Amino acid sequence: MYSATTTLRVRYSETDRMQYVYYGNYAAYYEVGRVEALRQLGLSYRTLEDSGIMMPVLECHSYYHKPARYDDLLTIKTTIPQMPVLKIKFEYELFDEAGTLLHSGDTTLAFINMANGRPVRAPQAMTDLLAPYFNDQQGS
Amino acid sequence: MYSATTTLRVRYSETDRMQYVYYGNYAAYYEVGRVEALRQLGLSYRTLEDSGIMMPVLECHSYYHKPARYDDLLTIKTTIPQMPVLKIKFEYELFDEAGTLLHSGDTTLAFINMANGRPVRAPQAMTDLLAPYFNDQQGS
Amino acid sequence: MYSATTTLRVRYSETDRMQYVYYGNYAAYYEVGRVEALRQLGLSYRTLEDSGIMMPVLECHSYYHKPARYDDLLTIKTTIPQMPVLKIKFEYELFDEAGTLLHSGDTTLAFINMANGRPVRAPQAMTDLLAPYFNDQQGS
Amino acid sequence: MYSATTTLRVRYSETDRMQYVYYGNYAAYYEVGRVEALRQLGLSYRTLEDSGIMMPVLECHSYYHKPARYDDLLTIKTTIPQMPVLKIKFEYELFDEAGTLLHSGDTTLAFINMANGRPVRAPQAMTDLLAPYFNDQQGS
Repeated sequence: MYSATTTLRVRYSETDRMQYVYYGNYAAYYEVGRVEALRQLGLSYRTLEDSGIMMPVLECHSYYHKPARYDDLLTIKTTIPQMPVLKIKFEYELFDEAGTLLHSGDTTLAFINMANGRPVRAPQAMTDLLAPYFNDQQGS
Repeated sequence: MYSATTTLRVRYSETDRMQYVYYGNYAAYYEVGRVEALRQLGLSYRTLEDSGIMMPVLECHSYYHKPARYDDLLTIKTTIPQMPVLKIKFEYELFDEAGTLLHSGDTTLAFINMANGRPVRAPQAMTDLLAPYFNDQQGS
Repeated sequence: MYSATTTLRVRYSETDRMQYVYYGNYAAYYEVGRVEALRQLGLSYRTLEDSGIMMPVLECHSYYHKPARYDDLLTIKTTIPQMPVLKIKFEYELFDEAGTLLHSGDTTLAFINMANGRPVRAPQAMTDLLAPYFNDQQGS
Repeated sequence: MYSATTTLRVRYSETDRMQYVYYGNYAAYYEVGRVEALRQLGLSYRTLEDSGIMMPVLECHSYYHKPARYDDLLTIKTTIPQMPVLKIKFEYELFDEAGTLLHSGDTTLAFINMANGRPVRAPQAMTDLLAPYFNDQQGS
């Protein structure tokens, strides 16, 4: 299991008439969470995409426990629960400054060769960096 | 069961660097789908909210089958599968002009009294309008 | 001068905590206005882009007269005031259902050859379609 | 004159099919710039709004010099050029990591008493904090 945290501050543009973060904006927060989790691991998603691998989302599941509000400083904990093979799952937990869990969700993404649009395995650069976090599962 | 369809055209602002509709923007499409489904039923969500009932989203599940692209004219089929009591579920299917299913999803929403923030039952105005579509379930 | 109108309904996702349409969302409305104005003229912006010409925005000016609100049905009047050469200007006026002017703005866009990133002249297909609307200016 | 800088990283959700930051998303970047400029001054916009003063945008002007791209780390320099009275102007300059100016813009905002929707003067808390930066103008 690999986990990383990052923070972001809720923007006015992300709120809605209900005074809460619009429910559709959490997906962009997940994206910040997973890109920063990969960056902390040593992997740039932009570089990955520039190398010809894109990671479109296949599924997304969101659970709204309590509303996030304007100007809240949110902590996003992103977890990769399993070693990726043909897909990668990311789990997200969003906390407010008091440490209260506001929101949780998960996304499953594929690895696609942009040249031909076909699924490929997780890039070696990614699995090499993740391997130390999944020693037990790998059989050793 | 109550179903309604509406159409929308993908905006440039809704696409991303992958040339597809950004995965987080489907939630706004769902919202268009459910608001128009309620309007076709005879119910204005704005009026509902102005009367003091808001419907925050509790859960959202999204399945990305094929990408929607810029300028695509999408048909959104929105279904209310069960008579709402304390929660209401909406199911969504998005089709392109050729009738291909691109995306499906569902959301579960609560009914909240805005005055005190407490859950309430589905408004009578809504259940009265939905009743004809759920005769069998109610009669058995 | 060429003008065209289109309508759109304000989405919940486009409102903000102030209960108004978020000020940054008008740019997406302009885009709907200009794409539909071109479509009514007989020109698809997607086809234009697929043919290798993109039209990035160089300048944007917005004037917020009165707020647009959730579920408002807005009419966008889009005007091309001059025959485009190296740039094209679009002017926008947004009205509510009572015909009140809520917002005005304008954008200036370039024509760029996507193959080499260099500016080009307005495509012949566009100027041919616009010519009938600018007879006086061209003839004088 | 008062200036402050903040940084933000371009999100995937903010890009478009042209591979650039969507032209309408700069307005949200301006908002981040001005809110952080006020915070660095010692003023929370959320607190201001909670106290009953909101600051809707009256005008917005944007100049797109060079595109910002996915994952770019942008520096936003926000300047308040004049002591606010009934309106406040913010000027923005966005730079990439190499220090190249990508974008500039400005917004003019009003101060509105949320209780009655009427314009008011800049709050004393704001002008007190800004006064040291405008000594010359005030003394002449």
